[in-house]
Amino acid sequence: MEKPQVLQGFRDYLPEMMDVRQHLIDTTRQVYESYGFLPLDTPALEYAEVLTGKYGEDEKLIYHFEDNGGREVALRYDLTVPLARVIASHPELPKPFKRYQVALAWRAESPQKGRFREFLQMDVDTVGSSSPLADAEIVAVVMDLMAALKLDDYVIRLNHRQVLNAIMDYFDIPQKEYTTVLRQVDKVEKIGRAEAEKNLIGVLGEKTVEALFNVLFTDEENVFAHLESLFNGRTSSQEAVANFKDIVSLIETKDKKHFRIDLSIARGLDYYTGLVMETNLLSHPKLGSVCSGGRYDQLMGKLAGVDLPAVGTSLGVDRLLTALAELESSSDNNGVMMAVFAGLEKETFALADKLRKAGIRVTMAVGDQKLGKQMQYANAIGAKVVLIYGQDEAAKKIVAARDMETGEQAELALEPQKELVSELRKIIGLE
Amino acid sequence: MEKPQVLQGFRDYLPEMMDVRQHLIDTTRQVYESYGFLPLDTPALEYAEVLTGKYGEDEKLIYHFEDNGGREVALRYDLTVPLARVIASHPELPKPFKRYQVALAWRAESPQKGRFREFLQMDVDTVGSSSPLADAEIVAVVMDLMAALKLDDYVIRLNHRQVLNAIMDYFDIPQKEYTTVLRQVDKVEKIGRAEAEKNLIGVLGEKTVEALFNVLFTDEENVFAHLESLFNGRTSSQEAVANFKDIVSLIETKDKKHFRIDLSIARGLDYYTGLVMETNLLSHPKLGSVCSGGRYDQLMGKLAGVDLPAVGTSLGVDRLLTALAELESSSDNNGVMMAVFAGLEKETFALADKLRKAGIRVTMAVGDQKLGKQMQYANAIGAKVVLIYGQDEAAKKIVAARDMETGEQAELALEPQKELVSELRKIIGLE
Repeated sequence: MEKPQVLQGFRDYLPEMMDVRQHLIDTTRQVYESYGFLPLDTPALEYAEVLTGKYGEDEKLIYHFEDNGGREVALRYDLTVPLARVIASHPELPKPFKRYQVALAWRAESPQKGRFREFLQMDVDTVGSSSPLADAEIVAVVMDLMAALKLDDYVIRLNHRQVLNAIMDYFDIPQKEYTTVLRQVDKVEKIGRAEAEKNLIGVLGEKTVEALFNVLFTDEENVFAHLESLFNGRTSSQEAVANFKDIVSLIETKDKKHFRIDLSIARGLDYYTGLVMETNLLSHPKLGSVCSGGRYDQLMGKLAGVDLPAVGTSLGVDRLLTALAELESSSDNNGVMMAVFAGLEKETFALADKLRKAGIRVTMAVGDQKLGKQMQYANAIGAKVVLIYGQDEAAKKIVAARDMETGEQAELALEPQKELVSELRKIIGLE
Repeated sequence: MEKPQVLQGFRDYLPEMMDVRQHLIDTTRQVYESYGFLPLDTPALEYAEVLTGKYGEDEKLIYHFEDNGGREVALRYDLTVPLARVIASHPELPKPFKRYQVALAWRAESPQKGRFREFLQMDVDTVGSSSPLADAEIVAVVMDLMAALKLDDYVIRLNHRQVLNAIMDYFDIPQKEYTTVLRQVDKVEKIGRAEAEKNLIGVLGEKTVEALFNVLFTDEENVFAHLESLFNGRTSSQEAVANFKDIVSLIETKDKKHFRIDLSIARGLDYYTGLVMETNLLSHPKLGSVCSGGRYDQLMGKLAGVDLPAVGTSLGVDRLLTALAELESSSDNNGVMMAVFAGLEKETFALADKLRKAGIRVTMAVGDQKLGKQMQYANAIGAKVVLIYGQDEAAKKIVAARDMETGEQAELALEPQKELVSELRKIIGLE
């Protein structure tokens, strides 16, 4: 039999990586829920028509097929379209509907580019509120998440699509050129400002390009005052600035350090209608944004025929896992391994049970009975301490605790049990 | 636009059901990990050839299709075949490999029979140990799980495939009739013993049927002593009894109340090679087994070409959810709703942030600003307490806490903050 393969772009998560992933999921859930975002899950398979026509040219990446009953079905491509479908399917849900979803999505991406075809998404969205409070909450929840993950060295960059439009309008750039212009603006980080400007001279003329870039990449201390004076007399432009300013002033009550305004980020031109955000780890500059999102007030209407404003964000799970895996991993996860000796199985089984009841993780060595092999196994599973209860120990009414790092061995009296547990918890670092 | 549908046999999990599901998942993970079972995850899609030829006539229920690159792929049908594939793909994994997996599986079942086509599985298995300790651990982990879920009114029924074979051998039943016989034995609960016996008279003769059923449905106090005397002189039959007895004597060190030996349960004739188990909730007799499993020493060899003994169990997640949903649900999940008044958004946002940092779940009312609408929203999301911070409260430097059950309203001073938090935690029952 050949060694079986996983499909390209798909992955096994072995225990070590699962620990990191589970830590990320647990932490994220806890932070999301502290804001009253509620968990939601949707089917992996939907009627294909729910998904098609929603993703533009990326639609070709949808996994779709005819099921055994002749229905056209498709695998979930993201969590936003299913959210829209839920909003439409369950009109009874109270609005604003604040939900999070942690679920897999599938895309037939090219694995050559290092992209995965199956990946975890963790989205958090508020549907049915146009309040700046809802925008600010999305930024705040990301701040709390980064703190909870101990990824403190980050910056959230904020922009506002209507402000961006107002700037382009100010320079009399025709709407049909917005996409072209913003595509070059997005490229500045990769190709440099000079190159991006050069690419736009043919479209806008040299003078406009330079003036536009001076605004987008401003180093003004007070960006809002700058924009307000620029937009003097333009009511709808001023309103856009005012909304952006409201959101930022709310965030500032919480944290002034971890965000900055960056008029040059655009994020998916066709989608967002207000605030947009990206989150970068300063320790991992090449990783790209680990958490992106913004306001999308027209999307629910388009997707589900239910006209509701919405704002949300999506974690770059694989990127966050990369960063988290570099932090100290929970290598002492397996706690204690309990060695097993012939003739003492029952006593050992009962002792392991008692220790578990006291909150100690105990892996019993149910494989090879030779002590050498058992110690090898303890090493392989990363046990911190091996407990030895052989004939000698039984006679002395003790259990020996061998520290796998230092090699030191302590003798712990079986009774009183409370003391045994307390000693052991100290040795494995639980107390 | 029509109201979008989910596919038959698929489900949305709205927040209320998610809470129950998540409680089950979290509790299960915690109990599994206390035994040193490690988390594993595998792709939802595998090469179709990994799955085909493994499920007998149920193979027609596999969702399979040709992907965008022309590969024959299939959706995960259970967690056992992927486990075998992982064992074969990653020979470096230390043995015994103790893993659990919480993941979806998909089967194109007939939804008419109330069966789901997408369902969560939670399997726990030890691969690479033939020790009775490994069998006993699987039973023990189920006992701890039921206790942790507060489903105390249950019984685990244990049997042993080799003992069952020995009994049939004792009555000289030809091997080719085992399946026919055990199918009728399995039916006793549904059709009654008399009917099942009648169905077998043509195959075995009346005398043998009665004698066989007298052993399988024995009311002997000491089943093992009874079997030992029955099998006197039959070495391999005695060995089967000894193995079963070893396993049971280990379990007895932990709990004598929640299991019993039942020689009449068979569970999937083609699969198990030793211990078999079923778990029934006495409070829900019609639910069927909520946790079934056993030893399958030949399956890994068949599935993955790696000859390793294995033992494990799988939870009936939907059945457990049914039982758990009837227990008191965590209806105060949303904790506190913070009302928002015009002009006080910043102070309210900052107050919510402080309360969250103190471990209180705060949902801000980011929808309609009218207080009546906000109170409606608090009701809809099941908030226990509504916090009101309007102009009056701001002037008095207090926040009003309205208990949504009793209607009582308390005035809490904003400072000192520690006291505010402590008072509030008392009101919502956290202290």
